Amino acid sequence: MAKALKVAGKNLAGKVVADFALAIDAMGGDHAPDSILDGLELAAERHPNARFLLVGDEARIGALLARRPRAAKACSLRHAPEAIPGDMKPTAALRVRGSSMRIAIDAVAQGEASGVVSAGNTGALMALAKIVVKTLPEIDRPALAAIGPSARGDVVMLDLGANLQCDSRNLVEFAIMGDAFARAVLGLTNPTMGLLNVGSEELKGDERVRVAAETLRDSHLGTNFRGFVEGHDIAAGTVDVIVTDGFTGNVALKTGEGALKLMRDLLRQVFTSSMPARMGYLLARPALDRLREWMDPRRYNGAVLIGLNGVVVKSHGGTDAVGFAHAVDVAMDMVTHRFNDRIREGLALLPSPAQRLAATPR
Amino acid sequence: MAKALKVAGKNLAGKVVADFALAIDAMGGDHAPDSILDGLELAAERHPNARFLLVGDEARIGALLARRPRAAKACSLRHAPEAIPGDMKPTAALRVRGSSMRIAIDAVAQGEASGVVSAGNTGALMALAKIVVKTLPEIDRPALAAIGPSARGDVVMLDLGANLQCDSRNLVEFAIMGDAFARAVLGLTNPTMGLLNVGSEELKGDERVRVAAETLRDSHLGTNFRGFVEGHDIAAGTVDVIVTDGFTGNVALKTGEGALKLMRDLLRQVFTSSMPARMGYLLARPALDRLREWMDPRRYNGAVLIGLNGVVVKSHGGTDAVGFAHAVDVAMDMVTHRFNDRIREGLALLPSPAQRLAATPR
Repeated sequence: MAKALKVAGKNLAGKVVADFALAIDAMGGDHAPDSILDGLELAAERHPNARFLLVGDEARIGALLARRPRAAKACSLRHAPEAIPGDMKPTAALRVRGSSMRIAIDAVAQGEASGVVSAGNTGALMALAKIVVKTLPEIDRPALAAIGPSARGDVVMLDLGANLQCDSRNLVEFAIMGDAFARAVLGLTNPTMGLLNVGSEELKGDERVRVAAETLRDSHLGTNFRGFVEGHDIAAGTVDVIVTDGFTGNVALKTGEGALKLMRDLLRQVFTSSMPARMGYLLARPALDRLREWMDPRRYNGAVLIGLNGVVVKSHGGTDAVGFAHAVDVAMDMVTHRFNDRIREGLALLPSPAQRLAATPR
Repeated sequence: MAKALKVAGKNLAGKVVADFALAIDAMGGDHAPDSILDGLELAAERHPNARFLLVGDEARIGALLARRPRAAKACSLRHAPEAIPGDMKPTAALRVRGSSMRIAIDAVAQGEASGVVSAGNTGALMALAKIVVKTLPEIDRPALAAIGPSARGDVVMLDLGANLQCDSRNLVEFAIMGDAFARAVLGLTNPTMGLLNVGSEELKGDERVRVAAETLRDSHLGTNFRGFVEGHDIAAGTVDVIVTDGFTGNVALKTGEGALKLMRDLLRQVFTSSMPARMGYLLARPALDRLREWMDPRRYNGAVLIGLNGVVVKSHGGTDAVGFAHAVDVAMDMVTHRFNDRIREGLALLPSPAQRLAATPR
């Protein structure tokens, strides 16, 4: 009975609880499977009621699980004979039916798990998720979203690279999905939102962003829509949700990360440059440690491919257990807050796709 | 005789030295004309042989000049009855014939000055420069370029917002202009170059960047062209010149600036958070001061609109005398290194525009 309902996909609307909260690709990432299992050991402690479907090389993972009691208790193991290499092209990855990534994604498509987390090949994950889990019927294109630090708290940005060229309709849909994401993952009741542009005046930018801004101003999101924001508004935290196309979003994300990394490296140089500087570091250490913790990229690990019939989270490939556990947190937030229901509610408040298409030229 | 030659524009090819190295818009910027004149006082010391044409409200500026002996000696004053407000639209600014910005730009077009520096309205400056100074015949569209800090020294990035939508031909021309800029302003003999993209693999990105990369690989810039770079490569300084479209470049520039500003603010908080932290600051101060100086945005003030029949430099509107003097330095570097000759040399080494057009679809 439960199976029949799940096959019908009803679990995705939150009506049926899947057997597993998340399917986990144990073989993806630079330090897999060790870092994945260490991350699950942390995640199992934070989510004591969650069940995970762990997919990978059974013999190898079984041995590792034996030494991680919490993860062992929370996980069911499913064998996958293959793993997708980090440099495999998405088209080739689609043909590897027995990969850990594919079998984990299949579990979402079949309603066995509500979401999937992988630290593996990004392009392969996006392609597989779109084809196997499928895009929500109301959405034209899924987007990659993530959370980052700002002067005024965490901010959500999307698209971070799933769609390099976007039209105004895509941007409007990203806004709706970003709003739902900020509610589910940041727990905000009224997230403010801005559209990334080269200036904040209404006349700035190209047709694409101007039409999207007009549509958003007239929509149910209008009261929280703050219009155009600029690059410096990301770190300033001027708005909670920043909407942009995948090319700009990917470059902006990596530019900001790069600037923060440069500062971390330079500060390390500063505090090792002389004996007094070393002493200075020791004196200021509590505050400096808080700053370092705040900037820790592991705290922001976990980009989400949103707009699909299930929760799909990509962990950074190079992250460690702490970072992977954070990606699991993000996925759990989306599963427990029934993220896709929020998107559907948002889309229902917009004019119909046909009306939208007519109103917002591609 | 000299005048006839100048009217023929030959000064721009470096064959005739103009009466003035630079025309200066004395009325543009948040703290004009005071900050402009203070900046010129610094610039006159650094460029003792340069003559400047100072354009603005004669009575007001005459009084200010009287108290700045070096600037007074280096400048000739020309009256402008009007000034372009910061919020005036470019189309409106084009109609104000008596503005200080317009009269300064006219001096470049007429060969009286080799370049112009303004801290005024960016949109107005770009529109006026394009229409009055005019684009180089070999160039499709001028671009906005500037220098920024990285882990491996200064890097050049363009376009920073002059062209929101670019085709592959534009990107190739930006690369040639960026190469010339890095030679003239950074003094590099073999600047390396990268095309900003969402990944470094050859197959990443859209048609536009892939075609541009192919053209650059096959061109005389091929040996220094490092292919695609990503957002984090900007701060890492992976290459000397980063080429991108104006939308992405503008967002990336402001995102990086925003991240660095956030770090400055947070460090200030760290070092005022407790008495020991204050003492720690004092101990580490020499190295922290070097870091602050290195990050000082005034050191990077001066964006250049390149691809025109003359040197056009935009100073940040909110900068002070030190920042404005730096913008003058950038303009002087371009004038003395005959920047436009370098661009012409680079363009001559490419296939003809007709061939390029055929090879690189718009």
